[in-house]
Amino acid sequence: MATKILNAAMLGLTPENMSSHEHLPSALDASLLNTSIVITLCVFFALLCACIVIGHLLEENRWANESITALLLGLCAGVVVLLIKKGESSHLMKFSEDLFFLYLLPPIIFNAGFQVKKKRFFKNFTTILLFGIFGTVISFCVISLGVFWTFKKIGVRSLNIKDHLAIGAIMSATDSVCTLQVLSQDETPFLYSIVFGEALKLIGTFLYLFFTSTALGLAAGLLSAFIIKTLYFGRHSTDREFALMILMAYLPYLLAELLNLSGILTVFFCGIVMSHYTWHNVTESSRITTKHAFATISFIAETFIFLYVGMDALDIDKWRESKASAGTSAAVSSTLFALVLVGRAAFIFPLANILNCFQKIESSKIHFKQQFIIWWAGLMRGAVTIALSYNQFASSVKSSPESALMITSTIIVVLFSTIVCGSVTKPLIEAVLLRHRKPMVSDLDDNVSLEELRVLLLESGDPNNSNNNQPARRASSLRLLISHPTTTVHYFWRKFDDKFMRPVFGGRGFVPFVPSTPTGAADDSSSA
Amino acid sequence: MATKILNAAMLGLTPENMSSHEHLPSALDASLLNTSIVITLCVFFALLCACIVIGHLLEENRWANESITALLLGLCAGVVVLLIKKGESSHLMKFSEDLFFLYLLPPIIFNAGFQVKKKRFFKNFTTILLFGIFGTVISFCVISLGVFWTFKKIGVRSLNIKDHLAIGAIMSATDSVCTLQVLSQDETPFLYSIVFGEALKLIGTFLYLFFTSTALGLAAGLLSAFIIKTLYFGRHSTDREFALMILMAYLPYLLAELLNLSGILTVFFCGIVMSHYTWHNVTESSRITTKHAFATISFIAETFIFLYVGMDALDIDKWRESKASAGTSAAVSSTLFALVLVGRAAFIFPLANILNCFQKIESSKIHFKQQFIIWWAGLMRGAVTIALSYNQFASSVKSSPESALMITSTIIVVLFSTIVCGSVTKPLIEAVLLRHRKPMVSDLDDNVSLEELRVLLLESGDPNNSNNNQPARRASSLRLLISHPTTTVHYFWRKFDDKFMRPVFGGRGFVPFVPSTPTGAADDSSSA
Repeated sequence: MATKILNAAMLGLTPENMSSHEHLPSALDASLLNTSIVITLCVFFALLCACIVIGHLLEENRWANESITALLLGLCAGVVVLLIKKGESSHLMKFSEDLFFLYLLPPIIFNAGFQVKKKRFFKNFTTILLFGIFGTVISFCVISLGVFWTFKKIGVRSLNIKDHLAIGAIMSATDSVCTLQVLSQDETPFLYSIVFGEALKLIGTFLYLFFTSTALGLAAGLLSAFIIKTLYFGRHSTDREFALMILMAYLPYLLAELLNLSGILTVFFCGIVMSHYTWHNVTESSRITTKHAFATISFIAETFIFLYVGMDALDIDKWRESKASAGTSAAVSSTLFALVLVGRAAFIFPLANILNCFQKIESSKIHFKQQFIIWWAGLMRGAVTIALSYNQFASSVKSSPESALMITSTIIVVLFSTIVCGSVTKPLIEAVLLRHRKPMVSDLDDNVSLEELRVLLLESGDPNNSNNNQPARRASSLRLLISHPTTTVHYFWRKFDDKFMRPVFGGRGFVPFVPSTPTGAADDSSSA
Repeated sequence: MATKILNAAMLGLTPENMSSHEHLPSALDASLLNTSIVITLCVFFALLCACIVIGHLLEENRWANESITALLLGLCAGVVVLLIKKGESSHLMKFSEDLFFLYLLPPIIFNAGFQVKKKRFFKNFTTILLFGIFGTVISFCVISLGVFWTFKKIGVRSLNIKDHLAIGAIMSATDSVCTLQVLSQDETPFLYSIVFGEALKLIGTFLYLFFTSTALGLAAGLLSAFIIKTLYFGRHSTDREFALMILMAYLPYLLAELLNLSGILTVFFCGIVMSHYTWHNVTESSRITTKHAFATISFIAETFIFLYVGMDALDIDKWRESKASAGTSAAVSSTLFALVLVGRAAFIFPLANILNCFQKIESSKIHFKQQFIIWWAGLMRGAVTIALSYNQFASSVKSSPESALMITSTIIVVLFSTIVCGSVTKPLIEAVLLRHRKPMVSDLDDNVSLEELRVLLLESGDPNNSNNNQPARRASSLRLLISHPTTTVHYFWRKFDDKFMRPVFGGRGFVPFVPSTPTGAADDSSSA
């Protein structure tokens, strides 16, 4: 004992060993913490900083953006880790569905709901639903059938029908709200239902999920508005308001997941309600704080995902396991990407033209160039695709070479689509839309912008910097919707909102706690 | 196969089963996520919401605060979980040092540094160091010796000398910066050094750790200021500024832990530098956002810790394992708490009186009533104590009943001290200080307030709501420091800061990017 203590005391001289012999005298690792976690976090946060700085410097560059920077930086870091570990593994962190679906995705979706232009979103709601639901179904069928026909010719034979359907589902996910909803919740029943003609039942469960999830989100948002308005938190502390908003934004997501509803839909609608009511009930500084803090958290989560996908791309075990030649790999990947292209084209153009038939006003129609942009901008596949692919093909049950090949091919498709589509989209939009843009009509409100396109796609680009008035965004004038019926709906909603909702839940123009005039007439006339 | 699919399709009807048969047909749990994690998070976040609401409602109540609310709510939740699990376990979450030291502590300490009143902190720096270092050493000796003498009489015999020293170290931690530094970094060498008279070496390593950790924090803070000032992030996006500040606040902590330095000291000084330079280089909305967001994150982390400690108190396994009678438990706990009282008294009163001897101005002396408050306010033991106790006594190597008894006794001491000291402190300060307060002298700057006392103790109370001008805080006039020498130091620092630091790193009055006058003379004269 005494020798041990003396030894320890001697060792204790150099600070490197300071905490190495605390309670487990044999362990020589750092302090109270798990060193590998600390190293991983350190690398990731340092890379995030680098992404932000580089992304900022490249802001004016039309070909680059934070996503691509993060992806490429992640790839570089992966190479470095691979070299350091002498080709053993490029993994600092195992791909974790929990990390992704519990911590990274919710803030992104919440912020999308929180910052969305509500009026435009609801004006385009039918289009969004149409593209989201039917589009995904069509795309899924095309890709599944395509995979079924082509893969045997390439030489991939061991996959069963379930795998083919899964590939269709994985590859048709555009990261859009409805798609995600369909995919993460009832992926398999969905597939089975399609196959066995149980489409009617499917629509029933889909509608059930859609409405319950939405209702949960709306209820949580309204509850937060009501609590903050009634208790008037700002009286004591801004921080409590902000804390409550964060917590009450995250809780419904967890609840929805627990109840097997769609957390993503829930948190999205919760975000919308919070920005419509709750946000107006808090103090001025809370408003600024929440607006920027939510956007920043979402931004960090997004960048983290791309960084992560980049580092994960060099999953050396999977590459070895797949045993495929470069030729086969390339063939499978390009087939998949081609199917994604075709699958997306197969619903965008027909659906858009069907919508145009119902549209009487010329300016409200979706013209071919706009259809092309919608088609192109939705081609990007991201982290959700990789997560689903791992989920399907990396399970311990089956680790055949061809399952591994599916994962590596998915990674290639994601890298290719993110880098190519990500960098080409901005210049493409400028080239296609700006050159031929029509003169603006006077009503700015009806002027559907790129923002709308983003909403429609819920792309992984940052929907935050809406202040960022770049000419490309301001100038484009996509007219996507049959605007008149929705305008009427909007009028009645406004009436209802002003008369019944806002007096209870607060909202713009409703200064909280003026007890004498809780429903002041002057406030009612404020615009939504 | 076909039957299986059909079965699955049939099952797929009810939404509860929607995602239960995805890729592992046998598993019936929810979607892609780990259900137990989701449940745990759900419960914790719901309780956090409840804490915030109840804490807000009890704001005016002088006996209650968020910490106590969280602790009691946690206890209640623990009881409920215990009942649901039929007495098996009250644990929703295993106590994790990683969670505590990696995710919860850094934001609290960073925010303490970020929101600290810099002038007052540095004016009292010597006192803080003196109380922090020597105070802890004295308290540690008193408690260790006390434990050594009394425990045998109570009937606790199996603990060795190392355990006694550890108890001394664990119980003397006031959650103050220096104490934590000493404890989490070189706990064992420290103890050994004391025992074997290697005090000189100890001071060397302590100073080494202190200066390297501080330097790392300062460097990281200055780097963030320099990057944000030079690249002028606000030009494009507020969110990038905020993201960079979060990341660059957290990175040095991780780096320090990796290098076996004191992450807590590092992140504390990083916070100070960031509030002095970086914060002034960002846009107005970023300033509001960072100020409130950091405070809120710290607030949530704090509340979470207390909630967690409350829930963890019913660690039924440890209670069973300890096999101690209620009498022994009570005897050990009360002995420990008595030793904490004595240990703290043993350095507060002598050190304060020694400081008073060097103090010529009557008003700068620390009077007995003020000493009493300082003594009392530092008695609270919190999550750090529990974390250290688990770390020492819950290791798999030794799981003797008496080790378990030490953990349960620590929990009792923490609960008792938090509830009693936490609720009595506020009324006590009012009673002792307000009744006998001297008339205010004109110089408000020299008027050391309760804020100062908080800095001195770095208590777990929230140092955020400094706007919250309660009479108790404004009125108390503790004069803790020999103010004149430090005033001179402060004068020269200001000169140096204005001439060399601010032109490079920015700071108050330095509007970023006015390229014509980067060191505008008018700005130099702004006050610190």
